[in-house]
Amino acid sequence: MLRVGIVGVSGYGGGEIARLLLAHPSAKVTFVISNTYKDQPLYASFPGMRGRTDLVCRGIEHLGRVSDECDVVFLAQENGFAMKHAGALLDDGLKVIDLSADFRLRNLAQYPVYYKFEHASPSLMDLAVYGLPELYKEHITSSPLIANPGCYATGVALSLAPLAADGLVDPATVVVSAMSGVSGAGRSKHNLTYHFPELNESAAPYAIAGGHRHTPEVEQTLSDLAGSPWMLTFNPHLIPITRGILVTAVATLTSNQDAVDLLEQYRSFYHVERNCPFVNVLGPGELPATKHTAGTNYVHIGLSVDKRLRRVTVVAALDNLVKGAAGQAIQNMNLISGLPETTGLTMPAIWP
Amino acid sequence: MLRVGIVGVSGYGGGEIARLLLAHPSAKVTFVISNTYKDQPLYASFPGMRGRTDLVCRGIEHLGRVSDECDVVFLAQENGFAMKHAGALLDDGLKVIDLSADFRLRNLAQYPVYYKFEHASPSLMDLAVYGLPELYKEHITSSPLIANPGCYATGVALSLAPLAADGLVDPATVVVSAMSGVSGAGRSKHNLTYHFPELNESAAPYAIAGGHRHTPEVEQTLSDLAGSPWMLTFNPHLIPITRGILVTAVATLTSNQDAVDLLEQYRSFYHVERNCPFVNVLGPGELPATKHTAGTNYVHIGLSVDKRLRRVTVVAALDNLVKGAAGQAIQNMNLISGLPETTGLTMPAIWP
Amino acid sequence: MLRVGIVGVSGYGGGEIARLLLAHPSAKVTFVISNTYKDQPLYASFPGMRGRTDLVCRGIEHLGRVSDECDVVFLAQENGFAMKHAGALLDDGLKVIDLSADFRLRNLAQYPVYYKFEHASPSLMDLAVYGLPELYKEHITSSPLIANPGCYATGVALSLAPLAADGLVDPATVVVSAMSGVSGAGRSKHNLTYHFPELNESAAPYAIAGGHRHTPEVEQTLSDLAGSPWMLTFNPHLIPITRGILVTAVATLTSNQDAVDLLEQYRSFYHVERNCPFVNVLGPGELPATKHTAGTNYVHIGLSVDKRLRRVTVVAALDNLVKGAAGQAIQNMNLISGLPETTGLTMPAIWP
Amino acid sequence: MLRVGIVGVSGYGGGEIARLLLAHPSAKVTFVISNTYKDQPLYASFPGMRGRTDLVCRGIEHLGRVSDECDVVFLAQENGFAMKHAGALLDDGLKVIDLSADFRLRNLAQYPVYYKFEHASPSLMDLAVYGLPELYKEHITSSPLIANPGCYATGVALSLAPLAADGLVDPATVVVSAMSGVSGAGRSKHNLTYHFPELNESAAPYAIAGGHRHTPEVEQTLSDLAGSPWMLTFNPHLIPITRGILVTAVATLTSNQDAVDLLEQYRSFYHVERNCPFVNVLGPGELPATKHTAGTNYVHIGLSVDKRLRRVTVVAALDNLVKGAAGQAIQNMNLISGLPETTGLTMPAIWP
Repeated sequence: MLRVGIVGVSGYGGGEIARLLLAHPSAKVTFVISNTYKDQPLYASFPGMRGRTDLVCRGIEHLGRVSDECDVVFLAQENGFAMKHAGALLDDGLKVIDLSADFRLRNLAQYPVYYKFEHASPSLMDLAVYGLPELYKEHITSSPLIANPGCYATGVALSLAPLAADGLVDPATVVVSAMSGVSGAGRSKHNLTYHFPELNESAAPYAIAGGHRHTPEVEQTLSDLAGSPWMLTFNPHLIPITRGILVTAVATLTSNQDAVDLLEQYRSFYHVERNCPFVNVLGPGELPATKHTAGTNYVHIGLSVDKRLRRVTVVAALDNLVKGAAGQAIQNMNLISGLPETTGLTMPAIWP
Repeated sequence: MLRVGIVGVSGYGGGEIARLLLAHPSAKVTFVISNTYKDQPLYASFPGMRGRTDLVCRGIEHLGRVSDECDVVFLAQENGFAMKHAGALLDDGLKVIDLSADFRLRNLAQYPVYYKFEHASPSLMDLAVYGLPELYKEHITSSPLIANPGCYATGVALSLAPLAADGLVDPATVVVSAMSGVSGAGRSKHNLTYHFPELNESAAPYAIAGGHRHTPEVEQTLSDLAGSPWMLTFNPHLIPITRGILVTAVATLTSNQDAVDLLEQYRSFYHVERNCPFVNVLGPGELPATKHTAGTNYVHIGLSVDKRLRRVTVVAALDNLVKGAAGQAIQNMNLISGLPETTGLTMPAIWP
Repeated sequence: MLRVGIVGVSGYGGGEIARLLLAHPSAKVTFVISNTYKDQPLYASFPGMRGRTDLVCRGIEHLGRVSDECDVVFLAQENGFAMKHAGALLDDGLKVIDLSADFRLRNLAQYPVYYKFEHASPSLMDLAVYGLPELYKEHITSSPLIANPGCYATGVALSLAPLAADGLVDPATVVVSAMSGVSGAGRSKHNLTYHFPELNESAAPYAIAGGHRHTPEVEQTLSDLAGSPWMLTFNPHLIPITRGILVTAVATLTSNQDAVDLLEQYRSFYHVERNCPFVNVLGPGELPATKHTAGTNYVHIGLSVDKRLRRVTVVAALDNLVKGAAGQAIQNMNLISGLPETTGLTMPAIWP
Repeated sequence: MLRVGIVGVSGYGGGEIARLLLAHPSAKVTFVISNTYKDQPLYASFPGMRGRTDLVCRGIEHLGRVSDECDVVFLAQENGFAMKHAGALLDDGLKVIDLSADFRLRNLAQYPVYYKFEHASPSLMDLAVYGLPELYKEHITSSPLIANPGCYATGVALSLAPLAADGLVDPATVVVSAMSGVSGAGRSKHNLTYHFPELNESAAPYAIAGGHRHTPEVEQTLSDLAGSPWMLTFNPHLIPITRGILVTAVATLTSNQDAVDLLEQYRSFYHVERNCPFVNVLGPGELPATKHTAGTNYVHIGLSVDKRLRRVTVVAALDNLVKGAAGQAIQNMNLISGLPETTGLTMPAIWP
């Protein structure tokens, strides 16, 4: 039984890891840290866990003791935390899966631009692997330090990966629109923007036209696949749902392929060339919806071609807290621990 | 491995049974019937099951073949179906768990009043047991025919049961207000009332002041416990959430007990006298919310006392599709099959 | 043209007054105060007013100058503000309409119990009139200081008033359940409770069994009507809608009246004995929904009788920010200013 | 006083016209047709109009009598109705404002492609004017037959018009993503897709990559402005809000303009060159939200420039039922009737 610690358990990412691991057959949460709920039962933070766990939250001052009781630790803290503390945890022999952006960008010069701080431990970057299993599985399995991808980044990368890898579209034409449920903003950020009456019945863009932090992360991944630089316009929106990300990516095709051809190439990429159990490539004429993935670790991908303009529109749906965060983190945990990749992660979507 | 059939799998109740059993370690769905999705894969009806099951829906004309492939069958059809077909299924050796109202009311004269039809098979009523495990567990374990309770009825009965059993309130003073998410209306009932724009941002009563069909069902249960007739006013409301029932029951106390005393008696009733793993009795000052039970088989119960008027207000929250329908049905399946009652049902609430 | 000031314009109550007065033919907002948006245009606080007003918010230090530019002032501040400042404003010759609880309770001993402070200006209470026009219109028209009722209190009082006035129910049996949209919590209270992901898809009780502050306010009104003390159990709930209050009140009838009789008495009370243009008494079998009143100053009232138990259930729907706050405040402004009561307030509900 | 008829009053478009005209100072609805609510009061269809109107719906067989009682008639029926009936209504001397697509497309060959029928009255197309006042005001004022634009089409055209008119972007690079509230689907289309539990908490694309009917309508308008053909990729999405459209349009700039420059050109286009009282051009760094326009006839437009890729992202928000349908129809009515364009249409957004 894998012994697991969660630092930042009372946030949405940390709490979702705890929730999913309560049903995991080969891992057990043994240690949880939350400053907000210090010395309180975990179910004080998540009333829906009442009757299911007796875990008590410890303060952050107990961070050094995680290695006494755990084999793997998930860091679900603000950006900037993991880069300061991962080194010591690794030295203690822990495997570390970080849900922040701290180890995602190989070009460290992007941290001051997008995150407003210098990277605090560049040397650790050599150990870190970007934890998107569909694209980096071999590297993940042998790494002690996983940079779990951003929620949007997961959706955008998976929606475009086959196109980038096989040169199917002109990289100078990629425009991505996306929308996210409000849980993506985090639990502690309960300001006026996310006050129910202000947000309900509204849809709004934010950080558009290059401003969003997931832009360089996605460009890094797609450039890896293409073997040459990819740059794209990424326009995120906030919509009044709790969970879910929908990515709508448009690009001009380099040849006259139709949707049937392209879907076949997607299936080949994800299911023949690679074994990607969490990617569902839809059929011709089928389109995904966020609700089809609610509570699951699956990504659903559909597409359509505008023949007049020879452009493809790819749409991907996922649960931002599962495949976009906690589920993917557990998928990574499974991989680095020698467990089957899907262990504890095969629940179908809650419906309705 | 228990082999399970589901008749009416494409509705919300039937689909939820399928979803939950995909994670059940000792049962496997082998046969599903849906006329609407006849000959289509189950995931055509529930896109969130794509990649998780290859089951294909069969037409209702295959009902007679369920016993070839199953040990237990769940009937999740309209009221009036089970009373016509359960006999043959029982004769075939199946255990039958019916989610409709067909076998709930022992006083058959109530069917014409509340359901507008005469009962079609009175003789089967001797076999049927009302499947509320917290109150009728011993009878359930040995029964081949379970009448799974209504969603509201489960919430109302459990919120009042300790008061009824121990004579703590005046039965002439019981007033119950309740609200339900829209999934309670069913999937096939997609009329104008449930059209998103009409219902969103609105709250409305319906079938108030004695008109709701769950009224006699609850009164039967509470009268059983009290040993004398209970009658109550039940006022249900529809609110724009997908899942969840909240029951707010008020009654005048027969003595000067405070909330601490009463909560202790609830705990005693549910956890000392009876072993009820799915009932969470809250602490003094704590109140439930439907979200605390979303996707779970748990009921959360809290209460408060108005000392000025010597009245108690008890509030119970549950998920109408799980503890109010499919989860409870599986709890009953576990009991009649000799499995631990909680098997496959211990997932904590999805949050947020 | 009546010149109007609003103190606390950037809250939901103050903003709604501003919004409604932009369409009022005989009043003009000339002075607005908001510390949060001090020196910013009003549309910085309410982007939906962009292009419609050039008003600039002033800091609270300008309170003394309201009388230079206004005839009437609305106070839309926290409880405790008006009782300190209304005196000076009245001395300056202003008519004052206060949306807080500061002048609602004639029994000042209730302030420490329900609001945790002593009343700061008992002498002003002689001037104040409770501003529920349907019941106190004659007193309102001649008063310089109006205590605008609470949102719940408006709904509960109007749903029960005809029963109380005419002795139609036993006052010892009154139980009220109610639910409110989240705007009722106010705009500045954007804490975790009202964070969209925590609240969406959930329903929860709060301050039940006598704990809610509107309880004494309602009892005062109903006791006035009955001529003897009324006490009731009031159980409020929070549901995930933005606007709207639904009140469901139950009481035992003193005679065998049916719904048709009672509705006739409601119509007589509101439309024959009194001229109440904003009360819509529904027909037999009709029930209200909050959406039927969204954005309006109307209250819709329906009822049903449980003959078995001789109990009536009355349901009232209203918009908590209009008839429950700003609209009623303007109705009061119309009355104290000699304008027709309905001026600027006859918009039908926004639908859908 | 203008006398107005509404054909199809019980749908969302027709009902919104009725609602808005109840507050219009110079027009009065005198005749309404709804087959669904034939011979019933209008408030049976819209309970929120109870107490505000005594209009009774007539059956469609009374269409020929509209001209006896009206000066202007709004047709708010399914596509295909107006092209059959507008001729007779015009012959009767009525001015006709049609909310369907029947008179929008000058290239009649597009009807079989996008609407699956041949145009039934090509000769009327010479009389018809596309009713987007911001771009076609002079033609509208003198026309007896107005083709009121589609909701998406209004948002897309207004978001891109200044760019198209002044050649600021490369027309070969235009990609538009948009999302709509569910009222856009109409009231009579209450099928499973729009059943509350299926749609709530979900976001989904539909008719993407050229499939949506508003594509040719928008291309016609932008081509008019540009003086040469514009073609674009239009990707609509359905999100769980009742009202509102958000359009996010991306295109590559032809020069190195920044957001400040572009916003100045938008203001010049809409407020110097043209008098467009309902267009709010936001400031640098400001972005719109649908809620900022809820219930109003305003469009809010903001934009941002991705300098790395020299692309502009323009975002426009509007209320699909007001500026996207009924409000714009009334704006057209004002113009063809010689009334000030803004008459009865200046209400600010309902908030929250």
